[in-house]
Amino acid sequence: MSSAPAALAQTPPPPYYAVIFTSQRAPGDGGYGEMAARMVALGSTYPGFLGIESARGADGVGITVSYWKDEESIRRWKADMEHRTAQAKGRSEWYSSYEVRIAKVERAYGFASK
Amino acid sequence: MSSAPAALAQTPPPPYYAVIFTSQRAPGDGGYGEMAARMVALGSTYPGFLGIESARGADGVGITVSYWKDEESIRRWKADMEHRTAQAKGRSEWYSSYEVRIAKVERAYGFASK
Repeated sequence: MSSAPAALAQTPPPPYYAVIFTSQRAPGDGGYGEMAARMVALGSTYPGFLGIESARGADGVGITVSYWKDEESIRRWKADMEHRTAQAKGRSEWYSSYEVRIAKVERAYGFASK
Repeated sequence: MSSAPAALAQTPPPPYYAVIFTSQRAPGDGGYGEMAARMVALGSTYPGFLGIESARGADGVGITVSYWKDEESIRRWKADMEHRTAQAKGRSEWYSSYEVRIAKVERAYGFASK
């Protein structure tokens, strides 16, 4: 096994679920970076977690997609107490807007050079 | 109407489809930025296009999610000749790896300050 997580998630064959979290950051940090890293670490310990991919550009628009075995796994992670605290702080401080979409991945294909 | 596109896509109530395109850029530009802008402009003219969100971080990992009315709309855009040329150049030059996931959005909710 590699010691560093792959930038692109290694997911099993579909079907599985994706949570597409798109956000616009508000100005300032206020502990955001630390919280974001903690949420990835904590979320990945939850049953049914399959992987995560994340990118944020210089314009403050970010997309994080987490992959899950089923909807029940997503519900459990959403209800995590520490995660709920982060969600509240996201609304009050870190994000000017966000959208969450829960989607069932039906097909997937990829490419890797070499 | 606003003259600038919103950073977060304004999508209708689910169900609809999402194409989650996650990629790792290879070094160099080679016309990538121009092609990427052209593909957004061209794709958004296709029937069934609902919106697009995109972010790429300093590490070269990018996520673009485009939203579509149905699978047929996705198939038509994938088969566009200019898009096919861009796909081939993506594999030969622009990306070291990518993953495409086609998913049915079942639920969505959001937040906006003010």
